[in-house]
Amino acid sequence: MEVDEVMCFPRLSRVAVCGGTHGNELSGVYLVRELLKAEKKVKKKKEEEDEEPVSVQLVLSNPRAMQQCRRYVDTDLNRCFTHAALNGSPSDSDPYEMIRSRELNAMLGPKGSPKAMDLVCDLHNTTANMGLCFIAYSDSDWVCLHLFRHLQRRIPDIPMRYIHFNVARKESYSLDSVGKHGFAMEIGPQPHGVVRSNIYTAMKVGVQTFAVRQYGGLVEVFTMVKHIDYPRDKETHNITAAIHPQLQDRDFCLLRPEDALFQTFSGETLRYKGKEPLYPFFVNECAYYEKGIALSLARKRQVMIPSIRVRDTAVFCS
Amino acid sequence: MEVDEVMCFPRLSRVAVCGGTHGNELSGVYLVRELLKAEKKVKKKKEEEDEEPVSVQLVLSNPRAMQQCRRYVDTDLNRCFTHAALNGSPSDSDPYEMIRSRELNAMLGPKGSPKAMDLVCDLHNTTANMGLCFIAYSDSDWVCLHLFRHLQRRIPDIPMRYIHFNVARKESYSLDSVGKHGFAMEIGPQPHGVVRSNIYTAMKVGVQTFAVRQYGGLVEVFTMVKHIDYPRDKETHNITAAIHPQLQDRDFCLLRPEDALFQTFSGETLRYKGKEPLYPFFVNECAYYEKGIALSLARKRQVMIPSIRVRDTAVFCS
Repeated sequence: MEVDEVMCFPRLSRVAVCGGTHGNELSGVYLVRELLKAEKKVKKKKEEEDEEPVSVQLVLSNPRAMQQCRRYVDTDLNRCFTHAALNGSPSDSDPYEMIRSRELNAMLGPKGSPKAMDLVCDLHNTTANMGLCFIAYSDSDWVCLHLFRHLQRRIPDIPMRYIHFNVARKESYSLDSVGKHGFAMEIGPQPHGVVRSNIYTAMKVGVQTFAVRQYGGLVEVFTMVKHIDYPRDKETHNITAAIHPQLQDRDFCLLRPEDALFQTFSGETLRYKGKEPLYPFFVNECAYYEKGIALSLARKRQVMIPSIRVRDTAVFCS
Repeated sequence: MEVDEVMCFPRLSRVAVCGGTHGNELSGVYLVRELLKAEKKVKKKKEEEDEEPVSVQLVLSNPRAMQQCRRYVDTDLNRCFTHAALNGSPSDSDPYEMIRSRELNAMLGPKGSPKAMDLVCDLHNTTANMGLCFIAYSDSDWVCLHLFRHLQRRIPDIPMRYIHFNVARKESYSLDSVGKHGFAMEIGPQPHGVVRSNIYTAMKVGVQTFAVRQYGGLVEVFTMVKHIDYPRDKETHNITAAIHPQLQDRDFCLLRPEDALFQTFSGETLRYKGKEPLYPFFVNECAYYEKGIALSLARKRQVMIPSIRVRDTAVFCS
């Protein structure tokens, strides 16, 4: 391989791992708590040995929502990190999560500034059968893509996908957008308010396996195309159908025109009327009922990532 | 068969089916809404034909919690139907669910009086892998046992169990205890705040198949023996372990001494230290984290139910 084909990888010296951005997504909550405990022990040992402490910043993002075991208290924290929201003038009547988003931006950002964390990884769970997903705003952020590829190679028994939300940087709204690089690590299926050992362990392995190696090559990227809402009653706005049993749990299995989409509560099958076959994900995610999303649909393509030269093997959790 | 071996079955002319007692257990919410719609149509038709309207009373038990998609607003409604709670002196500062429990008692009871409904069936969901369960306070209520047996025979492809909570009538606390006969129909696994088509349909088939037939014979009854809480941190009271992957989803599979029970967040396996092999159920039910229940354990036995003579085939939903 020619040297000029090889990228130099930035050193990720300031990394944040966040849990509890949604207070009822418990794998991240318990994993960050566990890592904090471990960190305390390591710090104590390193202090005794006069070494630098670990450089990963562990964050419990929404303590009030965690305490109530709810997604949020006033408004969805993970929608509060747009440029506009972070830079609006603060007011006493701001929702709790808006105040908290500014605190987190001060701690991990400021977003878009040189002071921002090199990488923010935000831990999430979903009720959808999605395995382990990276969700990122870019399909050409080699840092995220390389981390993903490394994980895929190291833990091949966990189904893993890279989802791309094609949103302009200024409009990006989630906590991970505060870092220079960032992604949400989304794992399911797990009911909110519940921790399942297999899902917790997949997340733990995922976070502990973070490292950058020199693999180049192809990565499959799912770019979000559109959301589909449940059929609803015009007057009450209540949903009138559930995800069809033939679609339930089949995230990332191609949905073709005329495939079964919903089953109404009276038993009728409603079919997918789109013209393009697309990949469903977030199929029946609990928190998206109120957002009007029964499932999202993505187009799949291959992205070539360059090989890299690693200055420092950037393992940041052991 | 000798005539004197045959019981006469009471006519169930006043039956209630309730959903939304827990506002985020959505199968019951949507099923009762669907049955209400169907009832409206039938009533209209019967009025036109000058017939008696249908005799099943359909109830949405906790509208405020349903509206917020939460288990409850102030306190768990399904613990508000003890004799003491229903007969205490009302006060302006009573929790919403306490007020609502008195309304429901007036509508479907009063509990313990001759005016009470003949049968109250209350629809619930669980995040545990429990299939379809009847939960009742008696192991000798032939009405409930016969209904259960009929369902078991008619829909053999749905795993079905009868759970017995050995609680004195006066101490019985749930909505179904307001009727002369009553049980909770509990179906899972389904995350709270989500409706899964397969679980909704199982509940719908269950309710629509209600009928009393003349089968006698043996019914397996699981009598609740004790609850087990998660291991917790002494200071924070946070849980320190999840249900072990070898136990997760294995409701009603015999748990033997020294079987794996929990996996701590640091990866250690904790084992069942009881001396008696027992049957676990409600394994990792979301709503029971706050009640200090990681799983419940039951003893299994066979109950012989007598054959019955049915005066009227008591189908009450078609």
